[in-house]
Amino acid sequence: MIYDVIIVGSGPAGLSAAIYAVRAQLSVLVLEKEYMSGGQMLNTYEVDNYPGLPGIGGFELGVKFREHAEKLGVKFFNIEVRHIAEEEDGRVKVLHTSREEFRARTVILAMGAHHSTLGVPGEKEFSGMGVSYCATCDGAFFKGRTVAVVGGGDAAVEDALFLARGCEKVYVIHRRDELRAAKLLQERLKQCKNVEFLWDTEVAEIRGDDQVECVKLHNKKDGSERILSLEGVFIAVGMKPNTGIVTNLLHLDKNGYIIASEDGITNKPGIFAVGDIRTKHLRQIVTAVSDGANVISSVEEYLNRQ
Amino acid sequence: MIYDVIIVGSGPAGLSAAIYAVRAQLSVLVLEKEYMSGGQMLNTYEVDNYPGLPGIGGFELGVKFREHAEKLGVKFFNIEVRHIAEEEDGRVKVLHTSREEFRARTVILAMGAHHSTLGVPGEKEFSGMGVSYCATCDGAFFKGRTVAVVGGGDAAVEDALFLARGCEKVYVIHRRDELRAAKLLQERLKQCKNVEFLWDTEVAEIRGDDQVECVKLHNKKDGSERILSLEGVFIAVGMKPNTGIVTNLLHLDKNGYIIASEDGITNKPGIFAVGDIRTKHLRQIVTAVSDGANVISSVEEYLNRQ
Repeated sequence: MIYDVIIVGSGPAGLSAAIYAVRAQLSVLVLEKEYMSGGQMLNTYEVDNYPGLPGIGGFELGVKFREHAEKLGVKFFNIEVRHIAEEEDGRVKVLHTSREEFRARTVILAMGAHHSTLGVPGEKEFSGMGVSYCATCDGAFFKGRTVAVVGGGDAAVEDALFLARGCEKVYVIHRRDELRAAKLLQERLKQCKNVEFLWDTEVAEIRGDDQVECVKLHNKKDGSERILSLEGVFIAVGMKPNTGIVTNLLHLDKNGYIIASEDGITNKPGIFAVGDIRTKHLRQIVTAVSDGANVISSVEEYLNRQ
Repeated sequence: MIYDVIIVGSGPAGLSAAIYAVRAQLSVLVLEKEYMSGGQMLNTYEVDNYPGLPGIGGFELGVKFREHAEKLGVKFFNIEVRHIAEEEDGRVKVLHTSREEFRARTVILAMGAHHSTLGVPGEKEFSGMGVSYCATCDGAFFKGRTVAVVGGGDAAVEDALFLARGCEKVYVIHRRDELRAAKLLQERLKQCKNVEFLWDTEVAEIRGDDQVECVKLHNKKDGSERILSLEGVFIAVGMKPNTGIVTNLLHLDKNGYIIASEDGITNKPGIFAVGDIRTKHLRQIVTAVSDGANVISSVEEYLNRQ
């Protein structure tokens, strides 16, 4: 069978694309690495910015998305795609997996991205319980509290500016003695009275009971250690798109994201990219879901013109 | 008081922007023409493509969005904005209304758009009960049924192609003897065996009991009339953005939409546009909601750089 569209990945972008594809009467299959791969959302304790479902758990929202897709008849297949190729005339894409091959007229890539981690003790255990990788997502839960941002790039400074508006105190922990972020952002941050910079400093450990209570810091210059009490640790040391299978197939930007705008169109006709894996400014559930809707318009236009 | 951001309009885009603004600790006010203006969604009988809430009523979804915003502390004000100006240095925008003035550092325009209507008897009564202005939204409810698309442009032909995949029969009713749509789309549509063109024809009336049952057609060439049985009428005769108050302030495209990409940035620093009112390909609840999230990033960047 040759599907109209095969979607790789079942996070918010992939599931939304599947919902829109079914409603557009396209034959569609979703390939996912593991059942309910759902991506970053599944590990989010509380999602308060998906309009209409305030304060829902990330896992619960993932289940709702999946149930919605299944209710409309979307079929899922648990398998890892290893390689994507085209038949000679370019009209049929072939998805190679560990077991079998799948064929489709169009492919939507929705494999998402993952946040780089510090790799220190406590980071994984307290993820969602004080450790966050997204100030836009979780910052509002820390109103009036003390938090730290780890990192020195634009994202870290933007996160710190965001948090400084609502938090009692924001520490910026950076392993170097100056920030990499844009100068104007740096100036703005340095004007915030409740922001304190901890230079040449690394987080060695994150500690707590149920929730984060403190971090152990290591000063790279003098080798000293100290304990810093806080309630939230925002880690902003970068994000990596899950583009391993398409690095030789598609145009990527310098950070590895697939170059595509909101229509999801890549440099390869018939191959589309949606959600966190594409070049975009704001990586959120709602922007991923929107991509899923938009891309089906692009898929239809492409199929109508074949 | 000078707000960080004033949002004009309380449809999905405006409410999502309000939710994201509050969560970013910005001071925000929503100005709406009438309580729960909510826009086109409120008149939608069933929404089946907002992921996570399958089959929800349009009005119910509007209420959920509003409750979400109110729960987070968003303040609304029922008033019609008549004119937007800037103070001399451009840093403060002034919104003039029938009664008072409001001031803000940024303004988000979310006044939406409205579908052009035929203006025939039965059209309004059966809106949402067989009469639809959006095949992407409602087409799936008509699987296996007989429907008509009214119009001759790209949107009408795309709607007809979409509907032809799932419906038993699709009539394309056009008042001229040829389509305005792109030739390639026309060719594709003419190949569909379940599509029939009714040229030089206008819908004179839409009839039914609880739901649409038939339309009365008028042939413009020979003056004849006939009754056509069907279950759905998709009206695709154009859409008009509600840009009355900003026509002299912002750059608009030839159809009157505010020129802005997914970041919501217009040609006027500090004034942003989201949802159906901006240039975009797919006007849907999810794409509007996504705009609301994206624009707050743009607003924050703008404010950080002031």
